[in-house]
Amino acid sequence: MKFRESLGYVGVVTGSLTFVPQVYQAWVSKSVGDLSIWMILILLLNVSIWLIYGIMGKDKAMILANTIIMVLSLLMLYFKLTF
Amino acid sequence: MKFRESLGYVGVVTGSLTFVPQVYQAWVSKSVGDLSIWMILILLLNVSIWLIYGIMGKDKAMILANTIIMVLSLLMLYFKLTF
Repeated sequence: MKFRESLGYVGVVTGSLTFVPQVYQAWVSKSVGDLSIWMILILLLNVSIWLIYGIMGKDKAMILANTIIMVLSLLMLYFKLTF
Repeated sequence: MKFRESLGYVGVVTGSLTFVPQVYQAWVSKSVGDLSIWMILILLLNVSIWLIYGIMGKDKAMILANTIIMVLSLLMLYFKLTF
């Protein structure tokens, strides 16, 4: 596997992990006042775009990563609207 | 331009914009307690990976988007550490 391809996989993994600690902190603290609702909404739009892009290109790593980020974004949105 | 390629450009633009409202809110409120430091650190790692990936592939849109996100991530880190 080429270096750039491996780097892409590391990027997909770290990308999927990015919002895990944020969702965890929001869940534990029940405090989301400092989270921007617009960040969450644009993130949801962005991840939807990349998910469609991934599906159209049959890119499994991209589909998996963006599905994970979409679930995390929806959790952040739910926490933002309910806490 | 094909639909998928156009969608990719929209993804790059919305991706660049994602953290603008969060940086703005942190700057105005001077309150960052609910932001996860680990989200910011993993985001920085992730964006560094995609920046190198973009540079290696000479992908200008990717380089631009990830440079913008890196600047926004560094601002969030600075706010998190100082506010």
